[in-house]
Amino acid sequence: MRLAQQYNVANISKIIQPTDRPGTVALVAEAASTVGPFYGAVIGMKNGPYERFDEELFGPLLPSLKIVACVNAGFNEFDLDWFTKNSIFVTNTLHAVAEPTADITIMLILNTLRDFSRFERQVKTGGWRGNPTAPPKDPNGLLLGIIGMGKIGKHVARKAQVFGMKVQYFNRRQIDAEEEKKLNVKYVSFSDLLATSDIVCINCPLTDETRGMIGEAEIASMKDGVFLINTGRGAVVEEAALIKGLWSGKIERAGLDVFDNEPVINPFFRGEDRCIVQPHMGSFTDVAWKNAYHECLANISALLSSGKPVSPVNTF
Amino acid sequence: MRLAQQYNVANISKIIQPTDRPGTVALVAEAASTVGPFYGAVIGMKNGPYERFDEELFGPLLPSLKIVACVNAGFNEFDLDWFTKNSIFVTNTLHAVAEPTADITIMLILNTLRDFSRFERQVKTGGWRGNPTAPPKDPNGLLLGIIGMGKIGKHVARKAQVFGMKVQYFNRRQIDAEEEKKLNVKYVSFSDLLATSDIVCINCPLTDETRGMIGEAEIASMKDGVFLINTGRGAVVEEAALIKGLWSGKIERAGLDVFDNEPVINPFFRGEDRCIVQPHMGSFTDVAWKNAYHECLANISALLSSGKPVSPVNTF
Repeated sequence: MRLAQQYNVANISKIIQPTDRPGTVALVAEAASTVGPFYGAVIGMKNGPYERFDEELFGPLLPSLKIVACVNAGFNEFDLDWFTKNSIFVTNTLHAVAEPTADITIMLILNTLRDFSRFERQVKTGGWRGNPTAPPKDPNGLLLGIIGMGKIGKHVARKAQVFGMKVQYFNRRQIDAEEEKKLNVKYVSFSDLLATSDIVCINCPLTDETRGMIGEAEIASMKDGVFLINTGRGAVVEEAALIKGLWSGKIERAGLDVFDNEPVINPFFRGEDRCIVQPHMGSFTDVAWKNAYHECLANISALLSSGKPVSPVNTF
Repeated sequence: MRLAQQYNVANISKIIQPTDRPGTVALVAEAASTVGPFYGAVIGMKNGPYERFDEELFGPLLPSLKIVACVNAGFNEFDLDWFTKNSIFVTNTLHAVAEPTADITIMLILNTLRDFSRFERQVKTGGWRGNPTAPPKDPNGLLLGIIGMGKIGKHVARKAQVFGMKVQYFNRRQIDAEEEKKLNVKYVSFSDLLATSDIVCINCPLTDETRGMIGEAEIASMKDGVFLINTGRGAVVEEAALIKGLWSGKIERAGLDVFDNEPVINPFFRGEDRCIVQPHMGSFTDVAWKNAYHECLANISALLSSGKPVSPVNTF
């Protein structure tokens, strides 16, 4: 976490490295009373150890704190009500992490269809192809259903089509007709998407609305042998229902970059070749890192110069 | 292996399942003397156990044998001189496996750039992100050098660009200017390709010309931290040089679907997270399988009806 004073954003005045939660709470309070007051804070990647972002952590920075700029796209780690009540902007990044997250989505789709992890494990443990019960799946002609057609979902839609996949989507609101045409995507209802997609791909943020939106009934309504990809947030899917779906074979394979209680994950996902997993790496590339910090500083600069950041996730 | 009689191609008259080499040699000879004569043979995937395709295996099918149609794109497993001398066509498939092989190439590029196998292993063994020394690489803006601009290479070029990679290539002969423009690729010399590519990607067949074309000197001439992808044939790269390049860090990571002595592979590739590996799965998808058999039968039909198969790899 970087704490910035008001009149010299470029000269970040205090960098706090994430340790554990109590240590970070103490360091922020100490910085506030010794080097502060601080106008803004930049929250970097790998922030798991000191979440949640709430009054306990940021209270000591009041009343000077006006903005917390986060390198991520998701913002479920914030107690947004508290920030809004105290007139503090929370901002995310719109562009920096969108394409890398779409890339990891495509990577997980390909790995999942081609049964990558099983075959790699076999080679790594001294075997070869083994006796797969079915040949790996070809993406060509499969129907991809994207839940969440924001910046990430749009990149996924564009990239998936180069592999011959057809794309349908569900979103809180339908995107405009011209953009649909340009992206060559079809809007369908949530239930139609679940019932007809060969691959169900979650690219929405975690909000009160989306928490647990894929549960037992939703998985039961999917095609037999469906592929499920989640690079959004773990809690969009009910974990028990996901495990049951994989265990029964209803879900053929799953590609998961995110988990309900990460970094502590259910051992089921570790023991199953049919779960292709990553430790929440969606936005974690050299280019994304650099660009995300630029977007954070641009948010702080914009607030200083115009009174409004570029990409706030709250309003007041 | 399927052995076909002359006048009823659709009614394949003998199917021999690969066991070991001596067993297959005996089964072919027995089929020739009991159910034959045979006009053609179709060689399916997973043919490792009964290679090599030569006089010992196919001699008993003379003089009726006129064509051996193979589901693969590569044909280094054939003693082509012997087939040519005996006026037997060998055919490969042009289309069925090209796109799936390009897909696995893109999959290995993404997995290699994003350090997929390290992160998956960490999660699968109870860890999380660990402490990577460098963030994973973003494909955006990287220069991809494709060696071999045939059907597979062209699909790779097209698909790589949706991830923001720029593409240059080396091929026995430059492809025509119009196709270069359409594919948005630039022809360079072999040495320029090695010296300037961020990712070197091998998509050529194994021939006398290409065997060992990437050796110690070629790897030394590459950029520090280069990524090497091989979905062609293992022996295009000198294995000792590849291992040395990985060991020294000259090659940052490698994505390998093929190996010199597969299915027996050097233990180095098994123990290294920086080697992202698959057991020669390039052409192995449900759709490719079906289409490859169709192409084999089309080759046999064409020879019967017009005297020339669709895609012979030898002439006489």
